[in-house]
Amino acid sequence: MEMQTLQTRIFALKESAKHLSISKEEERNALLKSIAEGLQKDFEHIRSANEADIAKARAEGQKEALVKRLVFSEEKLEASLLGITDVIGLADPIGRVQERRLLDTDLLLEKIAVPIGVIGMIFEARPDALLQIVSLCLKSGNGIVLKGGREAFQTNTALIASIQNSCRSSSLGSDWFTLLESHGDVDHILKMEEDIDLLIPRGSNQFVQYVMRNTAIPVLGHADGICHLYIDEHADLEKALEIAFDSKTQYPAACNAIETLLVHASRAEAFLPRLERRFKTAGVTIHGDATVASLIDCVPYQEGDYGVEYLALELNIKVVGSLDEALEHIKQYGSHHTDAIVSEDKDVMRKFFALVDSADVFANCSTRFADGFRFGLGAEVGISTAKIHARGPVGLGGLMSTKYVLRGNGEVVSSYTGKNCKKFLHRELDVEGRSLLLGENA
Amino acid sequence: MEMQTLQTRIFALKESAKHLSISKEEERNALLKSIAEGLQKDFEHIRSANEADIAKARAEGQKEALVKRLVFSEEKLEASLLGITDVIGLADPIGRVQERRLLDTDLLLEKIAVPIGVIGMIFEARPDALLQIVSLCLKSGNGIVLKGGREAFQTNTALIASIQNSCRSSSLGSDWFTLLESHGDVDHILKMEEDIDLLIPRGSNQFVQYVMRNTAIPVLGHADGICHLYIDEHADLEKALEIAFDSKTQYPAACNAIETLLVHASRAEAFLPRLERRFKTAGVTIHGDATVASLIDCVPYQEGDYGVEYLALELNIKVVGSLDEALEHIKQYGSHHTDAIVSEDKDVMRKFFALVDSADVFANCSTRFADGFRFGLGAEVGISTAKIHARGPVGLGGLMSTKYVLRGNGEVVSSYTGKNCKKFLHRELDVEGRSLLLGENA
Repeated sequence: MEMQTLQTRIFALKESAKHLSISKEEERNALLKSIAEGLQKDFEHIRSANEADIAKARAEGQKEALVKRLVFSEEKLEASLLGITDVIGLADPIGRVQERRLLDTDLLLEKIAVPIGVIGMIFEARPDALLQIVSLCLKSGNGIVLKGGREAFQTNTALIASIQNSCRSSSLGSDWFTLLESHGDVDHILKMEEDIDLLIPRGSNQFVQYVMRNTAIPVLGHADGICHLYIDEHADLEKALEIAFDSKTQYPAACNAIETLLVHASRAEAFLPRLERRFKTAGVTIHGDATVASLIDCVPYQEGDYGVEYLALELNIKVVGSLDEALEHIKQYGSHHTDAIVSEDKDVMRKFFALVDSADVFANCSTRFADGFRFGLGAEVGISTAKIHARGPVGLGGLMSTKYVLRGNGEVVSSYTGKNCKKFLHRELDVEGRSLLLGENA
Repeated sequence: MEMQTLQTRIFALKESAKHLSISKEEERNALLKSIAEGLQKDFEHIRSANEADIAKARAEGQKEALVKRLVFSEEKLEASLLGITDVIGLADPIGRVQERRLLDTDLLLEKIAVPIGVIGMIFEARPDALLQIVSLCLKSGNGIVLKGGREAFQTNTALIASIQNSCRSSSLGSDWFTLLESHGDVDHILKMEEDIDLLIPRGSNQFVQYVMRNTAIPVLGHADGICHLYIDEHADLEKALEIAFDSKTQYPAACNAIETLLVHASRAEAFLPRLERRFKTAGVTIHGDATVASLIDCVPYQEGDYGVEYLALELNIKVVGSLDEALEHIKQYGSHHTDAIVSEDKDVMRKFFALVDSADVFANCSTRFADGFRFGLGAEVGISTAKIHARGPVGLGGLMSTKYVLRGNGEVVSSYTGKNCKKFLHRELDVEGRSLLLGENA
């Protein structure tokens, strides 16, 4: 696209996003409903576009895993429509009052949730990710600049055309989102720090790492998901076996699946042979050092294995002498994503909770619970391993910023300084209900 | 400093910060008290160091404004000690529960506030900023890497020596903070993205801009403070006069002082001559275009004036035809810091609240209220104009991250998937009180 055209479009997008940011929840929900209906109506057209993308990918000799992610089938449509229905059902995040304080008799302060502004979403392959982020941005009142993968170009174009069509009858218009053409490279969106407030990349580990290292825009997400499960001296081995099996095999390609199992030396002999039998049923390859190899069959440990995110039915096993050694291993090799312990000892559990510096720290349950839906956050924007803004599974709240609004009656600061000055009241008020200051313009 | 030595020190700092992050509030408060007592005891030594810095700055021909900021007098000591007492009195931010939800009968989730980790603080001149940030980091359980200005080198060294001395009798030790030597340049700390989680620069506009543009570490703060006051058609001119005067003159060097006053055309003739008389008493220079010049004495407007942060007794005045024109001006020239309106019309006020995209949006009061203390946040970390993590005046909360802690009893995700699977309970629980999961190690 010509640079001039893009700038015009971004200008319109920001204006439209501002309008969206002060729109009523009913308008946004009504548009979400229209979008869902439109997608259903346009599905045959979207499917043809998707088939063309798939044929092209096959002709180019793309890997079957990529082709699989590319598919936008009837099941994918159904799941996307259910997702939109869920988003409609979420409480309106705009205008929620987080603080309300009377600074003085007539001086009312409110801290109010407002949309961040413009979200940049870069995604590889999966076209359903587009629908997910568009509906989340619409609900939360944010504008969105989308950059999809080259391989899903026709599908994405068809999806966007359908959404644009549904926007025609809405007062919210269709300028609040835009899809960057796929022939430009991803670097263009990474340089849009003047126009994009937050970037959300969705794709492979390497892809997210590339995004994080090459932009001045804040990035929400995570690159690595090297998660650990530690079987403590005081573990219930029945629970340990089920939790280890679920954490590795329930969906091995997920970021919250474990890559390394740490076992306390005192339990290794009792636990590992049982684990081996169970894991064999699922076809899991075990990588282990000499200690592990003395107890069960395994592929010999090679340097670097502890830093690999297998995303497959492969697992490192290491025997450790103490909780401290387990903590040290997690500190050295972990990616601050999700780490869990199995132990019946409450003090050990608390020490693990306190000392593991990860977004999610679990005891006696599967690492696979690290997920916005399972956590009860509703729709998930992503999982963040950053320590600022949002950490762990992120719901709609991750797309919100805040604004302080203060209404007075002629108050000036000079009355509150110097000798015999007025004193602040600083009376905390209940934050329930809508903003008292914004009124209808939430 | 040798690179090797620095790395050893940073390693020790991170270990010490981890210990600090799980320490009890009483230990942190006791150490804060010792530090305050130590500073009082060591004041003569600190004063000599400060006098040497001042003499050196004068000998080098530094500007008097810099020399003034450099002074660490008895009054500055008193103010710093009061600040530490305030910090001791703040509620413990560590371990506060933000969400508590029963995912299922035995599966309890808590979202808990935890320290961010290691804060980097870069400050020009003012040695009292060092004491402020050290006490805030200690209270919030964060490690801190300090980089002070070259001109305050001896004062900062003396302050740090005193604090280190006070740490000797505490179990928390003194490794959780370190002062980088002043002969290295600021660029070194900007590259410490592996070791520093959040940077807080304190200094001039240009200095903060330089920091923001030259680091991959998230930065908390703001560069420009170009704040506006709009006198609406429906303004009470008595209030408008007092608010304008306070917003400009109460402390013109502050970031929340106004640089431009916008006046609705219908009120200009009645308002500007009164404003001129009042502002003359304070020696304010007014910059105005031809319309303003037809009503009052002023320096003719020059291109670029609307983008200048005067930080002095100078003020742009512009007459606008409508609220929309005022909003457009703020959008074009503002820095998303603090903007205010004077109006008795609630609808106009609400529109201003909703459409001005700034951290602080005020009605009928001075822009100078934009401040952590006045907002009732207790100690102030800084004022942020970022849209992520923290926006507006930032209290101790800006130094905190979160952690999700989940405790189960053997639960696995496979039981919650597929036909006839278990359903999540997702029951919200009261967030009052300490963490149920961390226990004493909060």
